[in-house]
Amino acid sequence: MSTIRSLDDLYQLALLHLKGKRGNIVINLDGIPKISNSNDIIGNCLQEWIPRWLSERGLELQVHSGDSNTQAFPDFKATIDGYEYDMEVKCWNSLNSPGFDLANFDGLYRTLFNNPGKLNAKYLIFGYTPVTDGFIIQDIYLKNIWEITSKSQKYPIGLQVKQGNPYAIRPFAFHKRPDDCFETRRDFVIALAETREMFRSNNPEIPSAQEWLGRVEKKYKIYTGEEL
Amino acid sequence: MSTIRSLDDLYQLALLHLKGKRGNIVINLDGIPKISNSNDIIGNCLQEWIPRWLSERGLELQVHSGDSNTQAFPDFKATIDGYEYDMEVKCWNSLNSPGFDLANFDGLYRTLFNNPGKLNAKYLIFGYTPVTDGFIIQDIYLKNIWEITSKSQKYPIGLQVKQGNPYAIRPFAFHKRPDDCFETRRDFVIALAETREMFRSNNPEIPSAQEWLGRVEKKYKIYTGEEL
Repeated sequence: MSTIRSLDDLYQLALLHLKGKRGNIVINLDGIPKISNSNDIIGNCLQEWIPRWLSERGLELQVHSGDSNTQAFPDFKATIDGYEYDMEVKCWNSLNSPGFDLANFDGLYRTLFNNPGKLNAKYLIFGYTPVTDGFIIQDIYLKNIWEITSKSQKYPIGLQVKQGNPYAIRPFAFHKRPDDCFETRRDFVIALAETREMFRSNNPEIPSAQEWLGRVEKKYKIYTGEEL
Repeated sequence: MSTIRSLDDLYQLALLHLKGKRGNIVINLDGIPKISNSNDIIGNCLQEWIPRWLSERGLELQVHSGDSNTQAFPDFKATIDGYEYDMEVKCWNSLNSPGFDLANFDGLYRTLFNNPGKLNAKYLIFGYTPVTDGFIIQDIYLKNIWEITSKSQKYPIGLQVKQGNPYAIRPFAFHKRPDDCFETRRDFVIALAETREMFRSNNPEIPSAQEWLGRVEKKYKIYTGEEL
């Protein structure tokens, strides 16, 4: 068994074993197998398969437990050589623009206020294409959140807005235009603050953009020893 | 190959071949198979498998095409012995209350105004339970919509309300308390009218409860030759 000693090891392992590989999903009932190749099913199944495969390859991977609501961020905690890394595993049909949700806006805003180190959560992303008899893993990416997001036409960040409220943060077409993503972690954080400024909240528990940005900057430095 | 000459034939065929049977869903990638047994995946895969199985058993089944939005109702048209039947295939983990959406409220309201015969759409429903190595089909039901719905505590019908608007019509726990469902098609239609009355619309294209009920009754009789 290979040993994973760094995030790059993990990424190289995935590239080596999974990039370009074919897979399929078979549902068997009463002895009759049928192949499923709708996007929802492929995406959901892959998001189950990959973490289990990583665990079997020796990665110590914990599901962030607790509430089952989708605002929990991120999904996994990987322990590599004594260090803990926050991780998400995402999959999408790479013939389309990436459509997966990165995080709930309010959830991420709150999480970063209390724990700005989560900014460094790693996204392990699989782009697949469906084929008649299954799917092919076209490419694999290991990215920071600012490397897969960008400002959108209407908002400081790619944003799904529901009933006038910011809802989910959406990825940019990072696989086609990586140079148009945010350049730095700091740019991403400022875009979040600008989004809050556009959508001010009456809820006194939600810090203003200015208060939030100040605290995230300060706390990030305390926790990580680095500038935001 | 068996021949399906009636809806009851179809139902008996499903009972005979699928009730109590085990199934599983396997995702295979890089030659490594893993079993998926989360509810979303089982439900989605079964809803693909069942119509294909029915087609192979000789049922002439057409997907209602056109728009891909979820307001299309119902999903399928089955042709049996020259007659056309509207059909839906639904699956749920029968350890839980049925959680599938039956129809979008506004969509159903509009559809029945124009085509009240759709009231007789048949629901072929599979209750499964997940087990370690897959799932088991616990029971199968062939039902009319009024046989799987009931009034709820807050509304004249089981209803998901979003932002103050009626959204999806939800099933009652028909598998446990079949006698507490609506008794007749007419009771179901009246409950829809009462729901519209509770949620009046300013949209002039949406008929009032009274206008709607009158037309559905009249048109149902013209189309089917029977009283609502």
